[in-house]
Amino acid sequence: MTAGGADSTYAGVEIVTIGNELLRGDTIDGNAAWLGRRLAAAGIRVVRRATVGDDVPDIQRAVAEALNRTGAVLCTGGLGPTSDDLTRPAIAALFGRTSHVDDAVLAAIEARFTARGIAMPPSNRSQAEVPDGARVFPNPAGTAPGLALEDDRGIAILLPGVPSELHALIDGGVLHHLRARWPSLRPVSGALLRTTGISESALYDVVRDLVPAVAPIDVAFLPGFHGVDVRLTAFGGGGDMLGAAAARFEERLGRWTFTREQADLAEVVGEALRERGMHVALAESCTGGLVARRLTDVPGASAWLHAGFVAYHNDAKQSLLGVPAGTLERHGAVSEETVRAMLEGAMRAVSAPAGIAITGVAGPGGGTESRPVGTVWIAAAAAGRTEAKLFRFVGTRTAIREFAGQAALRMLHLLLLGMGAARGRDADPAEAGR
Amino acid sequence: MTAGGADSTYAGVEIVTIGNELLRGDTIDGNAAWLGRRLAAAGIRVVRRATVGDDVPDIQRAVAEALNRTGAVLCTGGLGPTSDDLTRPAIAALFGRTSHVDDAVLAAIEARFTARGIAMPPSNRSQAEVPDGARVFPNPAGTAPGLALEDDRGIAILLPGVPSELHALIDGGVLHHLRARWPSLRPVSGALLRTTGISESALYDVVRDLVPAVAPIDVAFLPGFHGVDVRLTAFGGGGDMLGAAAARFEERLGRWTFTREQADLAEVVGEALRERGMHVALAESCTGGLVARRLTDVPGASAWLHAGFVAYHNDAKQSLLGVPAGTLERHGAVSEETVRAMLEGAMRAVSAPAGIAITGVAGPGGGTESRPVGTVWIAAAAAGRTEAKLFRFVGTRTAIREFAGQAALRMLHLLLLGMGAARGRDADPAEAGR
Repeated sequence: MTAGGADSTYAGVEIVTIGNELLRGDTIDGNAAWLGRRLAAAGIRVVRRATVGDDVPDIQRAVAEALNRTGAVLCTGGLGPTSDDLTRPAIAALFGRTSHVDDAVLAAIEARFTARGIAMPPSNRSQAEVPDGARVFPNPAGTAPGLALEDDRGIAILLPGVPSELHALIDGGVLHHLRARWPSLRPVSGALLRTTGISESALYDVVRDLVPAVAPIDVAFLPGFHGVDVRLTAFGGGGDMLGAAAARFEERLGRWTFTREQADLAEVVGEALRERGMHVALAESCTGGLVARRLTDVPGASAWLHAGFVAYHNDAKQSLLGVPAGTLERHGAVSEETVRAMLEGAMRAVSAPAGIAITGVAGPGGGTESRPVGTVWIAAAAAGRTEAKLFRFVGTRTAIREFAGQAALRMLHLLLLGMGAARGRDADPAEAGR
Repeated sequence: MTAGGADSTYAGVEIVTIGNELLRGDTIDGNAAWLGRRLAAAGIRVVRRATVGDDVPDIQRAVAEALNRTGAVLCTGGLGPTSDDLTRPAIAALFGRTSHVDDAVLAAIEARFTARGIAMPPSNRSQAEVPDGARVFPNPAGTAPGLALEDDRGIAILLPGVPSELHALIDGGVLHHLRARWPSLRPVSGALLRTTGISESALYDVVRDLVPAVAPIDVAFLPGFHGVDVRLTAFGGGGDMLGAAAARFEERLGRWTFTREQADLAEVVGEALRERGMHVALAESCTGGLVARRLTDVPGASAWLHAGFVAYHNDAKQSLLGVPAGTLERHGAVSEETVRAMLEGAMRAVSAPAGIAITGVAGPGGGTESRPVGTVWIAAAAAGRTEAKLFRFVGTRTAIREFAGQAALRMLHLLLLGMGAARGRDADPAEAGR
């Protein structure tokens, strides 16, 4: 959902993504979305995208059309080491260029294999072929370099389809090179509020009147598994009003906003623990390591995460976390009593001043009338305070696990901020579900 | 990467997806991939995709080009109730049609709101506007019906961008209607080999000669974080030879192939444990719960996964897993001695006959000259046998963690199959990295 006015005066490119696997749907084209965001942030608008298969005439037609329409095209994919990676020869022919083996590129490819203690497979040699006159962008993350070809029609830049390599090339020089084509390009300025614990429609009702009030700033609501991002963008104008506009949204949404940065809630929680010199203990049942994995995605997590328990089976809840057998028998594995005992057991085992415990029914099986699939008890503790809360999430097994992990991190975060939510079930209807 | 000869005699369509949010990258276009898979399975090839913004001339140009090239186009998006949803009027004008309010469509939309106890907002009335002569496909999952317009150039079918509505319409009649255009259409048959532990280029060198040998069967190599999928597809012909072709690939790649189904290695390992009545204990350091999370993504995992330990800090390796302080001091946390002690400790704690332990340097910090970032020791045990192996992965923190988790699952899987790899480092150069 997007609202507000955008200015159409800035630079444009087209994207052509190449690969039979994209057309056949074996691969979802996440590169195109990533490029769209990266380019938009730099002030460059993607005006059109095309996807074609591994076929020389199809690749040439799509790129020629994009050059004639827009004069600048980014191609991704088809730069691999096999005989059916056709992008490089197709575009070399489109520009009327022959190719040569580039010694520096070949040496870089060989060095990657040498570092791993193995010889370069013969098929990788083709990746060192460079069309005459092409600009080479070294690839720090893989074997295929980026290549830029240019003539009267404009510029075509060839990039690998492997996301980590594409990202390294764009950020390592390609974006800078592209921006230089539009000397007066103003970077697009934007502000982000990442929210969690409120649905998109409930959030929209809270800020609905602000959307027209901040024009020409563009307001986008981007729902995801972990919450709704609110993105304010000043495309052509309004950059000077952006700070004030973001402040108006944050005033309304402060309760749900956990960061203004492009950061995961796990990073924000980790930073809050680090600042307080605390470490956190984890006791996960239905999320099965999901929270541990998210927290340890953050570099340096060992400063504030010493240990986590995945107590997936009731035996493990007893033997590892010391949940009394009687508690499990009387109240069941998905209960306030059990989740509190899990939390205490985990914190005690590693002498942690903070903790998270999660137990629930992620489905698809295991639900009962009184505890349907999606029933999850979560407990959190920090700064001497403990809370337990019942959630009823709706969705697939994957979604329920993600919602539970996010809700647990949110509970811990609010406790660390001294903003623990009211105790008990359904304290805030807007928070039900996610 | 795709190789082999495909038959060009079968049915083809183009897809045009519409929305500024797609170009800007705020939304990943999962619909295009879903449509590609659904159509391929029905024998219809997507020959090209385009994405354009919410702009009438852009929509019209893209659809007209697709009609002229291919004669059949599916459009998704831009059928919502707001003034930014322009697909319906744009395509009506392209076909020279005026529109009328369709009483049956209007009644269906009103009924959806009535069922929720609310009045239809006035803006939804626009969704009942139908171009004259268009075929209407009722939408069981939302308010915007599907619409098909046809003339000498071919057929354009307009579908909503909401995935659940798109799926309901395609499966509820649109696909049937489309297939009827090609009376001799045969469904596509395919086979999949999922491999792990071998790089794309090394794998290609192993089977290079088979690719032309199995024509007209199409062979695609699809690399991902967890390995390379080899997909064989018989588009127009060769379906009867598919089984034999897949067997030839599997004979070469058997050592690396872990399934012929669309299943994750975690599911395959879980099934192997279940068959053997074993449960597995986990001791994760640098992967921090990643393996636990993958295994518990599988429904019913509690039958073969009782508990896992995330021993992220050295203190936890001692206190939870009983790794002797002397072992950590003498050999370090990333060593064969430590990983074996972690494995034993985890298996002992929950009386498990199988186990995985992982300790390494995921980076970006923490590397040393002798143990650079990417150094990971993995141990696995099953069926009375224990193995420990040193890996040196190359990539980002995320990639190193994913590679390590996958390598650990592979080690356990091979042990469960009685196919444990040779012990020690670099037993198989092709397995280095991933």
